[in-house]
Amino acid sequence: MEDRIRSSFAKQSMMQTLGAEVESVAAGEVVITAPILPGSRQQHDVAHAALSFAIGDTAAGYAALTVMPEDCEVMTAEMKINLLAPGAGEHLRATGKVIKPGRRLVIVTAEVHAVTGHEEKLVAILQGTMVPVTA
Amino acid sequence: MEDRIRSSFAKQSMMQTLGAEVESVAAGEVVITAPILPGSRQQHDVAHAALSFAIGDTAAGYAALTVMPEDCEVMTAEMKINLLAPGAGEHLRATGKVIKPGRRLVIVTAEVHAVTGHEEKLVAILQGTMVPVTA
Amino acid sequence: MEDRIRSSFAKQSMMQTLGAEVESVAAGEVVITAPILPGSRQQHDVAHAALSFAIGDTAAGYAALTVMPEDCEVMTAEMKINLLAPGAGEHLRATGKVIKPGRRLVIVTAEVHAVTGHEEKLVAILQGTMVPVTA
Amino acid sequence: MEDRIRSSFAKQSMMQTLGAEVESVAAGEVVITAPILPGSRQQHDVAHAALSFAIGDTAAGYAALTVMPEDCEVMTAEMKINLLAPGAGEHLRATGKVIKPGRRLVIVTAEVHAVTGHEEKLVAILQGTMVPVTA
Repeated sequence: MEDRIRSSFAKQSMMQTLGAEVESVAAGEVVITAPILPGSRQQHDVAHAALSFAIGDTAAGYAALTVMPEDCEVMTAEMKINLLAPGAGEHLRATGKVIKPGRRLVIVTAEVHAVTGHEEKLVAILQGTMVPVTA
Repeated sequence: MEDRIRSSFAKQSMMQTLGAEVESVAAGEVVITAPILPGSRQQHDVAHAALSFAIGDTAAGYAALTVMPEDCEVMTAEMKINLLAPGAGEHLRATGKVIKPGRRLVIVTAEVHAVTGHEEKLVAILQGTMVPVTA
Repeated sequence: MEDRIRSSFAKQSMMQTLGAEVESVAAGEVVITAPILPGSRQQHDVAHAALSFAIGDTAAGYAALTVMPEDCEVMTAEMKINLLAPGAGEHLRATGKVIKPGRRLVIVTAEVHAVTGHEEKLVAILQGTMVPVTA
Repeated sequence: MEDRIRSSFAKQSMMQTLGAEVESVAAGEVVITAPILPGSRQQHDVAHAALSFAIGDTAAGYAALTVMPEDCEVMTAEMKINLLAPGAGEHLRATGKVIKPGRRLVIVTAEVHAVTGHEEKLVAILQGTMVPVTA
């Protein structure tokens, strides 16, 4: 499972552009991290909302993939993000979780934290729907 | 107004990373385009959902800025995206609109189209809330 | 089609509790109205958010049903509502529309207006996903 | 705090129409229950989505009120609901929680369970934004 996710992740050029990495893969839960690169910022020099969205959505999508049949890929049907605090820190970490698996729809959430040393701050929460597509 | 938006946009390094440009600025409506760069893709080689989110959210945010007092900046409080079709084409174009201005909250929507020659396909719709912040 | 929707609507006891009625049915667009009954209010005596949600969601769902095969029923997978203004007036009117039909997912929006005489005020917008279920 | 919430709740006629009750109030968390009344159903005779929305939104709103100054009331700015399973059972129970308090925006979530005897099934999750309004 982890190989399959790391291999799919490696094909997402957007993840490389953002410097994102898969930190861990477990059944129903995937963690993705990303530095706040000089090229990933908004006008106040903190992480762009799209960075939190990108890694939150991707972590949630791969969490969904862990509960889908082997021959499936996953696609985001819809995703909602609430931004709680500026994305400032050493890096961002997104934890995606499956709330409800299903044959046609998988309901997921993600939390994005800004990490500085041992401190973590919740900066965004996401809630959405993933759909399986035959690869 | 257009100068103010173009100047703020130029400070968003994420927009440069994604190759995005401001196409037009009008009261309550801003259009942003982006190519589907080799580095902006998901595993099936079409635009990553985060690209549609990034330009849709930014177009909606600047649309909101056009109805705010001059000394304000805008921040996304929350945004929801429904993805309708793969982001395949020559480039993406996001049209952000103000649905309801307000002193504390500005309600916005955005549509993202994939454009190929004279053809356009709706690939994502967004609905969210922007808040003014004192610059 | 209209008969099918009116017959399904009649079986939704919540719609009767709220006094809601089907105003019109067209391909991809359904309009539902509801009075702001004494029993449908929040603590400031205007319409409860759940009333706008109820008729907006139902109008969107039946709009989706107009583009589904005949033997299907429709179910809400997810729905987001932004509330723009207090629901005050003689009645509320929800217009549900199909944005993108599909075999597995139908993307919809709805607008809810508060109506007083000839005046209309937009009080809520909704964006969501309907799924067909075999009846 | 609990008195203030119970008193506000008693003024929401929609809550009485739906038979809803406040089960518990704690700092940042409020629980509301409702029977699945004969008049609260959709066409398949289970709870209408609007019932889950109504009590989930209200539980989240009062959870937000517990972290606001005393002279405030709370209003829903936006709310998203994902429906996970049919609302079938003896009653529904919504648990609303504050994720991030704030002077201008309070970010909240809610879970709605269908309860039958000692069994509970998660039927809906909500994520949204509450705003304080001066009473």
